[in-house]
Amino acid sequence: MRDCHEEIARWIEPLGAHVRVDAAGNLRGFYPAAEPKAPRLLIGSHLDTVPNAGAYDGILGAVLAITLLEGLQGRRLPFGIEVVGFSEEEGVRFGTPFIGSRALVGRLDQKVLDLRDAQGISVRKAIENFGLNPHEIPQAELENDTLAYLEFHIEQGPVLEKLNQPLAAVEAIAGQSRLEFTFLGRANHAGTTPMHLRRDAIAGAAEWIGRVEHVAREVPGLVATVGKFEAKPGAANVIAEEVRLTLDVRHCFDDVRTRAVEDLIFQSNEITARRGLSVRESVLSSQAAVAMDSFLTAEIEQAIRKAGCKPHRMVSGAGHDAMILAERVPAAMIFLRTPGGISHDPAESVVVEDVEKAIECGLHLLDQLASSPEFHTRMNRA
Amino acid sequence: MRDCHEEIARWIEPLGAHVRVDAAGNLRGFYPAAEPKAPRLLIGSHLDTVPNAGAYDGILGAVLAITLLEGLQGRRLPFGIEVVGFSEEEGVRFGTPFIGSRALVGRLDQKVLDLRDAQGISVRKAIENFGLNPHEIPQAELENDTLAYLEFHIEQGPVLEKLNQPLAAVEAIAGQSRLEFTFLGRANHAGTTPMHLRRDAIAGAAEWIGRVEHVAREVPGLVATVGKFEAKPGAANVIAEEVRLTLDVRHCFDDVRTRAVEDLIFQSNEITARRGLSVRESVLSSQAAVAMDSFLTAEIEQAIRKAGCKPHRMVSGAGHDAMILAERVPAAMIFLRTPGGISHDPAESVVVEDVEKAIECGLHLLDQLASSPEFHTRMNRA
Repeated sequence: MRDCHEEIARWIEPLGAHVRVDAAGNLRGFYPAAEPKAPRLLIGSHLDTVPNAGAYDGILGAVLAITLLEGLQGRRLPFGIEVVGFSEEEGVRFGTPFIGSRALVGRLDQKVLDLRDAQGISVRKAIENFGLNPHEIPQAELENDTLAYLEFHIEQGPVLEKLNQPLAAVEAIAGQSRLEFTFLGRANHAGTTPMHLRRDAIAGAAEWIGRVEHVAREVPGLVATVGKFEAKPGAANVIAEEVRLTLDVRHCFDDVRTRAVEDLIFQSNEITARRGLSVRESVLSSQAAVAMDSFLTAEIEQAIRKAGCKPHRMVSGAGHDAMILAERVPAAMIFLRTPGGISHDPAESVVVEDVEKAIECGLHLLDQLASSPEFHTRMNRA
Repeated sequence: MRDCHEEIARWIEPLGAHVRVDAAGNLRGFYPAAEPKAPRLLIGSHLDTVPNAGAYDGILGAVLAITLLEGLQGRRLPFGIEVVGFSEEEGVRFGTPFIGSRALVGRLDQKVLDLRDAQGISVRKAIENFGLNPHEIPQAELENDTLAYLEFHIEQGPVLEKLNQPLAAVEAIAGQSRLEFTFLGRANHAGTTPMHLRRDAIAGAAEWIGRVEHVAREVPGLVATVGKFEAKPGAANVIAEEVRLTLDVRHCFDDVRTRAVEDLIFQSNEITARRGLSVRESVLSSQAAVAMDSFLTAEIEQAIRKAGCKPHRMVSGAGHDAMILAERVPAAMIFLRTPGGISHDPAESVVVEDVEKAIECGLHLLDQLASSPEFHTRMNRA
């Protein structure tokens, strides 16, 4: 990460930006406005990624922010631009995502600092080991003059590819429920137990998974996934006693998501009661949907159009730093088409022409904001 | 096992039987007939069991054989009785069942002797370590004067309990097919991949498991089980790429079993083709059904009736040593009710009155055979 910071600093400082690393390990590069006391626009994404990852998830958004500074060719805008390269978005090391961006909204608190990695090293200690001072985390918080946060990111899904479009404006980040279900039956001999006397946890769970798919397919925009499925005792000749599985449900409207989860809990009870099984579920996490700023989203659509593309509005099924920043400032996102929808994989890619369109779109957007009466009103308020 | 052999020898020798341990580790106790050159009837079951087992699976059949000798109170029959306590029926140590009984039908061959346990010790070496000589295995084979094999065993299923009957005559041991299926889809982000663009291996496998249950429920006597289910990558927020599962299908008619397996393979292809998945299956084992001897089964029914019980005929869904012995001699089995159908578990039990009925039934059976014209014809042939 230190090498990455140094490399980015080498790109960004010649463009007239001042670079620092805040106490949460976020790279912050400030490109001043035309006037000294003007407010600032944040553009960024995360610098970390997952093991066995591709080359674009996160870092492309940081590189595009730098490219926009470069595209200004020394021109100063009515607002400053702060390029942000967030640390620890993925949550790989400490099991909790968005550690870097939380610092900007004042939520990198003691609880998060106490989290430990697999070697027992806390977030606090890791920050110190990197040569930073955890006591300075409050100085990482957003300045009061921050107008908005803008993030470019690969879609990580197949939607834009199916539509044959390079860019999309993200209108919301879906809310997400994650639950664990345990189906309990009775282990028994696979040869000596007639079908009608079985209490088969795998068969019951399988029936319910059919309902999960059905419910999700019935509701536009709803996705529901059983991604983890563990059966015990797990022997070919023994009827399964226990299945432990996860349910992940996402939608941009929280009530739609909540209703779907309730429906699926109800159906799990109906199925298990009929089969002489039992089921219990526990909610691992429940996260509300986050709307992106509607003014910025409309401006992004216009900029996409100016770049010669058809604008598409979509919901992000994945979480992003923009979701965290939106707690404090208007936030918006631009998605780039992801070939094959493949990400978190070395095969992750982008189309070069799409990246060109993203740069064009970004420069149009900066010009639009610089001359927008509404954005000027916001600037005067900041 | 040595302690077990010694204990049984202490019970059986005072009854007038001569005890030896054959080269396959089977205990053989011979109780002579009234006449010196008379043929013999084998009665037995296995002495080994599974880890964390109950107290009855196997050993009860050996104890009942001894109890029948005791019940004769020194009386000699027109045939000798050889009590057999088989070694290694369960297949726990070497992954292959029926090692002891195979020796009696000449199938404890070099291939089996070369099998190794988890410590790398071969069957051959284990036999030597026990103080036996693998070269003497041919002497463990059935004598030419063997009339039949009879085995008492707990049912290990819930059928007799549901019928409220203590004993059953086993008419056949079901044939069994065991397969492994691998469903292949595409791993993808659970949040960003719309339902209609998924290739979800868990969802496909779950739909197919519904078909497995449906097919088995449609055909009387058919059982089909998916007991092992492993999904990869197995993360809550990733659509499953691969499911590897087992299918166990059993029926007393081989063509019914084979048709069911073919139907389920066909349906796996239909489901995966529709879902953009692929599937491949491999047959792990396929074992034909084994009929028990019809004369002996009818005699057992009569003996059950004489013991004051209603005779029930049933198919054994589990394999037993009787299945191996049936390759060479007429074989028959008597099942005892298993409370809750629970076996291979410390909670495995029997009803004391059922055991009394089994002893009564066994003594009636010995008397019937001793006076049966058909059995006398068989004796003269032996």
